[in-house]
Amino acid sequence: MEFRIEKDTMGEVKVPADKYWGAQTERSRNNFKIGAAGSMPLEIVYGFAYLKKAAAHANHELGVLSKEKRDLISQVCDEILEGKHDDQFPLVIWQTGSGTQSNMNVNEVIANRAHEMAGKKIGEGEKTIQPNDDVNKSQSSNDTFPTGMHIAAYKKITEVTIPGVKKLRDTLDKKSKEFKNVVKIGRTHLMDATPLTLGQEFSGYVSQLDHGLKALENTLDHLSELALGGTAVGTGLNTPEGYDVLVAKYIAEFTGLPFKTAPNKFEALAAHDAIVESHGALKQLAVSLNKIANDIRMMASGPRSGIGEIIIPANEPGSSIMPGKVNPTQCEALTMVCAQVMGNDVAITVGGTQGHYELNVFKPVMAANILQSAQLLGDACASFEKNCAAGIEPNHDRIKELLNNSLMLVTALNTKIGYYKAAEIANAAHRNGTTLREEAVRLGYVTEEEYDEWVKPEDMVGSFK
Amino acid sequence: MEFRIEKDTMGEVKVPADKYWGAQTERSRNNFKIGAAGSMPLEIVYGFAYLKKAAAHANHELGVLSKEKRDLISQVCDEILEGKHDDQFPLVIWQTGSGTQSNMNVNEVIANRAHEMAGKKIGEGEKTIQPNDDVNKSQSSNDTFPTGMHIAAYKKITEVTIPGVKKLRDTLDKKSKEFKNVVKIGRTHLMDATPLTLGQEFSGYVSQLDHGLKALENTLDHLSELALGGTAVGTGLNTPEGYDVLVAKYIAEFTGLPFKTAPNKFEALAAHDAIVESHGALKQLAVSLNKIANDIRMMASGPRSGIGEIIIPANEPGSSIMPGKVNPTQCEALTMVCAQVMGNDVAITVGGTQGHYELNVFKPVMAANILQSAQLLGDACASFEKNCAAGIEPNHDRIKELLNNSLMLVTALNTKIGYYKAAEIANAAHRNGTTLREEAVRLGYVTEEEYDEWVKPEDMVGSFK
Amino acid sequence: MEFRIEKDTMGEVKVPADKYWGAQTERSRNNFKIGAAGSMPLEIVYGFAYLKKAAAHANHELGVLSKEKRDLISQVCDEILEGKHDDQFPLVIWQTGSGTQSNMNVNEVIANRAHEMAGKKIGEGEKTIQPNDDVNKSQSSNDTFPTGMHIAAYKKITEVTIPGVKKLRDTLDKKSKEFKNVVKIGRTHLMDATPLTLGQEFSGYVSQLDHGLKALENTLDHLSELALGGTAVGTGLNTPEGYDVLVAKYIAEFTGLPFKTAPNKFEALAAHDAIVESHGALKQLAVSLNKIANDIRMMASGPRSGIGEIIIPANEPGSSIMPGKVNPTQCEALTMVCAQVMGNDVAITVGGTQGHYELNVFKPVMAANILQSAQLLGDACASFEKNCAAGIEPNHDRIKELLNNSLMLVTALNTKIGYYKAAEIANAAHRNGTTLREEAVRLGYVTEEEYDEWVKPEDMVGSFK
Amino acid sequence: MEFRIEKDTMGEVKVPADKYWGAQTERSRNNFKIGAAGSMPLEIVYGFAYLKKAAAHANHELGVLSKEKRDLISQVCDEILEGKHDDQFPLVIWQTGSGTQSNMNVNEVIANRAHEMAGKKIGEGEKTIQPNDDVNKSQSSNDTFPTGMHIAAYKKITEVTIPGVKKLRDTLDKKSKEFKNVVKIGRTHLMDATPLTLGQEFSGYVSQLDHGLKALENTLDHLSELALGGTAVGTGLNTPEGYDVLVAKYIAEFTGLPFKTAPNKFEALAAHDAIVESHGALKQLAVSLNKIANDIRMMASGPRSGIGEIIIPANEPGSSIMPGKVNPTQCEALTMVCAQVMGNDVAITVGGTQGHYELNVFKPVMAANILQSAQLLGDACASFEKNCAAGIEPNHDRIKELLNNSLMLVTALNTKIGYYKAAEIANAAHRNGTTLREEAVRLGYVTEEEYDEWVKPEDMVGSFK
Repeated sequence: MEFRIEKDTMGEVKVPADKYWGAQTERSRNNFKIGAAGSMPLEIVYGFAYLKKAAAHANHELGVLSKEKRDLISQVCDEILEGKHDDQFPLVIWQTGSGTQSNMNVNEVIANRAHEMAGKKIGEGEKTIQPNDDVNKSQSSNDTFPTGMHIAAYKKITEVTIPGVKKLRDTLDKKSKEFKNVVKIGRTHLMDATPLTLGQEFSGYVSQLDHGLKALENTLDHLSELALGGTAVGTGLNTPEGYDVLVAKYIAEFTGLPFKTAPNKFEALAAHDAIVESHGALKQLAVSLNKIANDIRMMASGPRSGIGEIIIPANEPGSSIMPGKVNPTQCEALTMVCAQVMGNDVAITVGGTQGHYELNVFKPVMAANILQSAQLLGDACASFEKNCAAGIEPNHDRIKELLNNSLMLVTALNTKIGYYKAAEIANAAHRNGTTLREEAVRLGYVTEEEYDEWVKPEDMVGSFK
Repeated sequence: MEFRIEKDTMGEVKVPADKYWGAQTERSRNNFKIGAAGSMPLEIVYGFAYLKKAAAHANHELGVLSKEKRDLISQVCDEILEGKHDDQFPLVIWQTGSGTQSNMNVNEVIANRAHEMAGKKIGEGEKTIQPNDDVNKSQSSNDTFPTGMHIAAYKKITEVTIPGVKKLRDTLDKKSKEFKNVVKIGRTHLMDATPLTLGQEFSGYVSQLDHGLKALENTLDHLSELALGGTAVGTGLNTPEGYDVLVAKYIAEFTGLPFKTAPNKFEALAAHDAIVESHGALKQLAVSLNKIANDIRMMASGPRSGIGEIIIPANEPGSSIMPGKVNPTQCEALTMVCAQVMGNDVAITVGGTQGHYELNVFKPVMAANILQSAQLLGDACASFEKNCAAGIEPNHDRIKELLNNSLMLVTALNTKIGYYKAAEIANAAHRNGTTLREEAVRLGYVTEEEYDEWVKPEDMVGSFK
Repeated sequence: MEFRIEKDTMGEVKVPADKYWGAQTERSRNNFKIGAAGSMPLEIVYGFAYLKKAAAHANHELGVLSKEKRDLISQVCDEILEGKHDDQFPLVIWQTGSGTQSNMNVNEVIANRAHEMAGKKIGEGEKTIQPNDDVNKSQSSNDTFPTGMHIAAYKKITEVTIPGVKKLRDTLDKKSKEFKNVVKIGRTHLMDATPLTLGQEFSGYVSQLDHGLKALENTLDHLSELALGGTAVGTGLNTPEGYDVLVAKYIAEFTGLPFKTAPNKFEALAAHDAIVESHGALKQLAVSLNKIANDIRMMASGPRSGIGEIIIPANEPGSSIMPGKVNPTQCEALTMVCAQVMGNDVAITVGGTQGHYELNVFKPVMAANILQSAQLLGDACASFEKNCAAGIEPNHDRIKELLNNSLMLVTALNTKIGYYKAAEIANAAHRNGTTLREEAVRLGYVTEEEYDEWVKPEDMVGSFK
Repeated sequence: MEFRIEKDTMGEVKVPADKYWGAQTERSRNNFKIGAAGSMPLEIVYGFAYLKKAAAHANHELGVLSKEKRDLISQVCDEILEGKHDDQFPLVIWQTGSGTQSNMNVNEVIANRAHEMAGKKIGEGEKTIQPNDDVNKSQSSNDTFPTGMHIAAYKKITEVTIPGVKKLRDTLDKKSKEFKNVVKIGRTHLMDATPLTLGQEFSGYVSQLDHGLKALENTLDHLSELALGGTAVGTGLNTPEGYDVLVAKYIAEFTGLPFKTAPNKFEALAAHDAIVESHGALKQLAVSLNKIANDIRMMASGPRSGIGEIIIPANEPGSSIMPGKVNPTQCEALTMVCAQVMGNDVAITVGGTQGHYELNVFKPVMAANILQSAQLLGDACASFEKNCAAGIEPNHDRIKELLNNSLMLVTALNTKIGYYKAAEIANAAHRNGTTLREEAVRLGYVTEEEYDEWVKPEDMVGSFK
């Protein structure tokens, strides 16, 4: 491989000649051989591209950066956002906890690419644009990295998570309405209970997701606060007057999202409670989705020796050894995602607790975990919606069979003959393997006519939607 | 011990003669010898007392319960709320997961005490009030327990947690203002960084708690939704028309809190995402408080060989072996509480995922954990405020000494001579054990006058509050 | 209330006249009003009683404590271990993180009670025994508290957890043998699969618990290491030569358990990885038990609309509204305990990470969590064994019905006609609602005779035990 | 792109013409678009390669597979293990929870590549080797996937984790010996305490890692148990007599690791407690490493306004804005890894709890998490060792300065003048800003000569190693 020499304040470093990155990126590559290369999420890099462009604009507008430099920086940022330089960001999550080296990676790539755009050859002559003095002007890793991660997380949540969950929510709502007259046995403690409709069951899922979406949206305001302008410790040292508000305005403009400058920059650098908060809501959604997916696979279990009340799509052969087997694989993928999100919540919690003084240095691990959770939840909901939920159908025969056998229909008699006599009927039917009707009449508590009038499953499902 | 005979649908049970509880409570006592007796939080029992009274009122108003029974039930509920029967609730958290037996414990105590209030002797004659048919009328464990736990959690959060956190927040805010001109060294990565004021540092804590309180308040709406009226599976079987709205209105009236009936009862029985949601916010507060308490103990460390920038109150001898030692014990109590809350969050998460069909049967463990977290956080904040935060004072001499030694003041020169030359100065001073000023002049990058004009810590702390 | 005056190095404190505790305990009571009073587990106090007595013996043997003092201290320790002074320990978990105040609580109670035993009146005259100089001789909170918590945890695990789990393991093993010929349908992905015996299923549970017990026992060696002798920072300052080994020998003698001095005292004070390690094994058991309890409640589900393959004991009425309902309440109690243990594991993990320099100050929260987990797991297993597992019976009719319907019996044909043809048969039977036999013959892949010879559920369950 | 047609029991599927995979892989690619493609760890694929080769050998030896087929299968497996087909495994973690599709991916690639090796063209003619009937002979996804994940995890732990941790342990041990005479101040509660040597501090770290390694090694026996031979539900249906033992022998031979057949196959399919167990030990190591890394960064903090007792290597510029800053970046990378491992532990715990009946369907998420943790811990320890620990040096001047200032040296007087008088001396010195010596003499408790003889830091560090 060919190399060129790059320099930083510590001296010279050999860098692969065909790469835009510089000395600090290369040092990081060598010093942090932890896990697979390039694990730092590209979304963070894109977040940086937005903010570097916004900073260049704000710096120019406030008179501290030339138009030429602003435009060169902006052009490289646009290229990065188009995905043209994805292979220029080789660093890992497990680097310095401020993400300084990823910030420098972006600074160096922009500087060298800008040099090239300016018609020069990388590694030759004075750099047209300096990584620290120009690209990083009015910035510090300490305020750029949290800004980048807020941009990335906000985008991921609003572009992937929320649409994915909503899609599933809407399909479950449609199913709830379709199934609104399908009376079936209820189950509590996994045991037979009084009836409800399949539509009512599904309405509970919809309500869970509605609450979850609302909880997630409640967190977006905190997440929209940007640290940029705080620089090294939150005081905004070396930034021009008005910079923090202006740079946030540019970021909002470039991303089309309602970002704003954080009212308190000290919090914004030293704590990442906004990430903790948003991930808390993602975890809540994971809890809800786990419940929903579990119910669906239990209701679909069988085909002959399970519950079998609903039929889910058969998407692939289910077994490498058992011919003809079909499994609730979308439920499994989704619940595995939920388990991961619950784990990620603890990683984020632990990272969040450990800010020290002016800086939390668990930024990359917190960023990586929230981005993974947000992506997986959105994708898994979309997959589940398309490949499972949309195709769910009731197994009407089975539903009727199970409903009519149920001893819990006796509950309808509570208000007529009291809890204790009703219990006597149910216990007798259970013991004797008979029907409620037989025992109710035999025990002399009701007549056949009364039984038929009072015990109607379809009258037991109330008026809730 | 003397016993009397009580009965339920399974037969007779011997119950201690001096207790109001009945057969089902006694069965539970015998069947669940897990951990200490009486671990079910009393707050849950009080939640039940509110709802039983409200149900009696709603049932009467809707024509299904006599005025006499309503009043008897209400009187016993009032006695319970006055704490007169705390020793009548011996059951444990680790019982049936619907809390059925705690519901029956309340039903039985109310019925027997009402019998007594009606001038009869417990265990003699037909019960004046039936535990199931009267006290539990229009109810099921499945909707009462979640109602009781929402009432208990809502009260605890608004009466203990929020006031405790706010008290601490206000004191930190006061300190932030007091310390607004105390310029000190900043630290990032635990390493010396550019200066800020002690007031700015504290303002970050205030901002964290403000965000945390807002996040917690955002969850209260979900928590204010009550399951009552859903009965066994959410359909409201055996409840009179309009009951759910009316009973919630009575609960709101009796508690003075904005409770309302849950729009979707199926969710309200089968999932406890509201508990997951509120506890998520408690966990966020724990994350924030852990950061704050950690910073304070690090800044107070010493007295001679630590950081020593602040002085915290000495409340007790710190060591049984080291004479004269004073420790940051309030920080330790608070961070231990935070660790517990983070653990409780996982217990609640796990419980929340495992609702099956129409019922989540992890109710008691979820309730107990959120109540513990809410109590401990509120109490620990109040204790920390009173015994630590309120007494924090800056150690001005030490703060000045550390500030003036700092090599990071060189950052002020970035905008004058560029990052690279500034780094050269700092490195030289570090290497030679000299001051920045000496090296800056020696290297010829600035004059003494320029240095003195440009490098002023008090000018480096910006305008943030 | 009456008070007397007690003193410590900070001055005078008013203490309730009828209590043995002194100034430092009282300060702690006032300074840490966090949660319910007396939450520090009594097991820790008993652990202290063992070690104070052992220290007195070692100190005497090494010539630094008189026989009279040794004997007075020992007598009070014996009284504490008999439970005579349980009301003398009012402190909470949420105090100083070294547990200093609980150490002093014990020291003070011993000193004052010894004074009384020596025929004097508390609060009058020079103390016969000094809390710091005598009771705490050759000790520090920093080595006593971890010693106390190791003693308490070791005892709880060996006296409650392991016996409880073993009891359940043995009953499941007995059931496994009883059920060894009960051929039933297997289920994978909750879907019908090839058959196995009910005994085989239960053997898997036994194997899980065997592995879990072994894992737990593997941790006991680390837990048997005692910090005592390390004093303030691990160096053993102010201890006589040979003290650490000797005091551990006495603790081993008094408890009858194989305790030994920790080879490295610096770890033993600054980190509590032994607690992390043992609790990791408790968490593993929780994972196993959750699986087992879940399976049992699913197999017992019904009575008419669930799986219904096994019958579990009906211990109490299951519903306050649904007459005749019986629920898997022991499974619910056990799985709630499992959720708590999983949460506690995170609390312990967080506490364990945060030792700083020479001391971990999350000792009380770590101790309280491991003791709770160990107690609850042991109790819940014993309860589950007695009230559920011991009474499990197969529902033979139901098992046969489900077995014979299964389409997965077709797997037996794989080795005769290949996977693809076997799948064709199963799919046809599923589509047409017919039997495998019918379709196998209709498709011409096997004769009726071949089918009957090749597809025998009882031949499909292998030879595993 | 060009396609060819592949078939499975559900029908035809278009597959990229240049890939070896078949219909089921392609279905999975389309049905599970969750997160980045190819996220299923390659280590799992390699685990499959070992077991497929071993199964071919065992099947041949037991007379159910021809020599030709055995050899073809083995050759492809060898190619896979050489990394020649890494691009043939495009599936994600978030698929069916049994990993069936990854099993089929391997089966299909082997079958098609073998067809090619046999001189045929993929997609033409009868397959030389059938994916299900030959490659998967005597196997099911249900026993292959857990076997593959045990192989992968065992290899990763023994080849990456343990060597990485040991390397760090050995370097810390070397440092401990180097620093054995460097007397320094101890700190408890972050506050000044009695002295110890820097070598003693490091010996605590070594002891933590020794215990952690032992705990990890204790789990390997469980992890060495292989499910293979259990097939669909653990009964070993469709396997020849003796197959399970033989196939494990071959796996042991091919991997050079002590694998053995699981004594109980029902556990081995339905529960993954071995993964829970081993990851529990990885989490314990994370707890230890977090403590160690935290201590080191605190002791290295400064350079002028922190603790500054040790000097760690400066590997890269520390700040994009603060010139000359050097940060404890290796500590940060390592503690971020620890946070991730703690999170992963919860993901694995949640996955582990949820086995149902004969199968746990959280296999891929459990596998991915343990592999990530094992890799990251090993890599991060190696990185930390090389780039930080190996270069740690004491800052002797600073250590001496802090030691001599300490008020806690007074503890040495406890045994001479008692705890209370010693406390009086320390309090006076603290209050007056004087030295202990001055106050001790002034108060008349000791003479100057006695003080100098009794208070020698180097005599206070005991004899522990």
